[in-house]
Amino acid sequence: MRAASATELVDAATAGNPRAVARLISLVEDASGQLREIMALLAPRAGHAQVIGLTGSPGVGKSTSTSALVSAFRARDLRVGVLAIDPSSPFTGGALLGDRVRMQEHATDPGVYIRSLASRGHLGGLSWATPQALRVLDAAGFDVVLVETVGVGQAEVDIASLADCTLVLLAPGMGDGVQAAKAGILEIADVFVVNKADRDGAENTYRELTHMIALAGPAAASQGGWRPPVLKAVASRGEGIAEVVDAIADHRAWLVEHGVLDARRRRRAADEIEQIALTRLRLRMGDLRDGSLLHSLAADVVAGLTDPYTAADRVVAGLATTQPRHA
Amino acid sequence: MRAASATELVDAATAGNPRAVARLISLVEDASGQLREIMALLAPRAGHAQVIGLTGSPGVGKSTSTSALVSAFRARDLRVGVLAIDPSSPFTGGALLGDRVRMQEHATDPGVYIRSLASRGHLGGLSWATPQALRVLDAAGFDVVLVETVGVGQAEVDIASLADCTLVLLAPGMGDGVQAAKAGILEIADVFVVNKADRDGAENTYRELTHMIALAGPAAASQGGWRPPVLKAVASRGEGIAEVVDAIADHRAWLVEHGVLDARRRRRAADEIEQIALTRLRLRMGDLRDGSLLHSLAADVVAGLTDPYTAADRVVAGLATTQPRHA
Repeated sequence: MRAASATELVDAATAGNPRAVARLISLVEDASGQLREIMALLAPRAGHAQVIGLTGSPGVGKSTSTSALVSAFRARDLRVGVLAIDPSSPFTGGALLGDRVRMQEHATDPGVYIRSLASRGHLGGLSWATPQALRVLDAAGFDVVLVETVGVGQAEVDIASLADCTLVLLAPGMGDGVQAAKAGILEIADVFVVNKADRDGAENTYRELTHMIALAGPAAASQGGWRPPVLKAVASRGEGIAEVVDAIADHRAWLVEHGVLDARRRRRAADEIEQIALTRLRLRMGDLRDGSLLHSLAADVVAGLTDPYTAADRVVAGLATTQPRHA
Repeated sequence: MRAASATELVDAATAGNPRAVARLISLVEDASGQLREIMALLAPRAGHAQVIGLTGSPGVGKSTSTSALVSAFRARDLRVGVLAIDPSSPFTGGALLGDRVRMQEHATDPGVYIRSLASRGHLGGLSWATPQALRVLDAAGFDVVLVETVGVGQAEVDIASLADCTLVLLAPGMGDGVQAAKAGILEIADVFVVNKADRDGAENTYRELTHMIALAGPAAASQGGWRPPVLKAVASRGEGIAEVVDAIADHRAWLVEHGVLDARRRRRAADEIEQIALTRLRLRMGDLRDGSLLHSLAADVVAGLTDPYTAADRVVAGLATTQPRHA
């Protein structure tokens, strides 16, 4: 059987064929030679999906919450894509993959597409393919895309820069969860959810968090004046999930009203363009003078014959006078 | 009083003047306009110091161990510099700064220089100025430079790429310390130290760690065949510290014997050159067409008029045809 062309795949994905969606994401993840063609085909069809990030420490109930949110969006007749970023190392891998089983209630719903992406390195930045995979789901007509990451390391910061709305989940009894996570989560959360709110200590977690947000003040967050609400939920029974969906809608209305949604998306696109350009330039640096320039300059620096700034000048000058590598 | 020139400062630092060393590191940290001149002056004088990284979770006794190591190196008549990377956010800041007080026993020793550098962001990557500050201490004739970081997030990975030898500290009773840290520490440690070895559970921590290293196998580590030893210490009483110094020396002898020391230093210099070049290129990207090119391309991507790969092509092409920014 002939392999489908990029155009055929994109047409099929846009028409809602889940196998075409899966194939496109795989091509993107493998940095296939068709990547550029695929991205060019997707560009005019994307830009409609609402991107929601969901993060929190292991054990707060992320997958259960994601699953409950999927049900809530489906009840509103929206099509939902889920990208679950799995750590590729044994760091937290086991438990996460086990949780994923809970998503199976949506496995036969054609309005839901669920996909795991491997994260980058043991500190868990998002997969470099995440923005591209998002664009595939966006072009394929999913109204909402949930991106779920473990709230450890770089991924939770990355997700905030990708998403229109970032949910941070907490749960009672996670030890020093609130205090330890303090600095990070205030910077990234648009909506806080205290999950497992029927458990002992939920009230404490709620109070600590509310207090922390009050202390930070309305202008402290990078959200430009939005004060993240704190909601309570018991995701395993679907309790409080409608309120979370409402809070996401409130946040979106606020973003639109203040002109922040478009600004966020443009900043995200600028970051993405910059990263692609820098990756390309880094490859070219490695190729300069058949790959020997950087090595010989590094040897000169180690020998004290030059300094890294002067060496960098020579690399940058070299880039301006060489043929581009086809990447 | 006239401000000292870069040449005067570098001369004074090389002659062992601690105020000149402090001033140079401040100029470097502030990315002063003299940075490039300073780096060029330091280049021929650096390259002699042995760089030792020291990392571990909060509470394992990093500062106490650093202090004990400083004493041990001083007893061998070596001059010692210490760069302590402090998180700049409240993430773990409080406790760390308190611990720093323990270093004061060395405050009046002219053969010791101690300096804090703020880390980058709340996830704790090293300060971008760390390699430059290292070079200042190196040129100033310190035989050993200890770089101490909190073993959380990116800093512990960064330190392994900067140091000739990376010590990873653990302590008993740190909860799931060994298991949780597993993936990360095996990749970066050249020497393991189980500190607070007089406490309950030390034997368990030691056994777990030894078992983990045995499982990983001799070739699993990025250290190219070196199998990290596991030592026990009670740093607060100086016990086991001489053995740690011996292990560092063994590791260094091994690096030299296998030609790895120079290879590591060249790789480090290549990374540094690449980072400086990429930073410069990123600045230039932002400057293209008076700062409007990246923004208008991002707006086009958001509007679906182009894709990020095509946009990146235009940015890269723009770089080749513009005058460099003086940075």
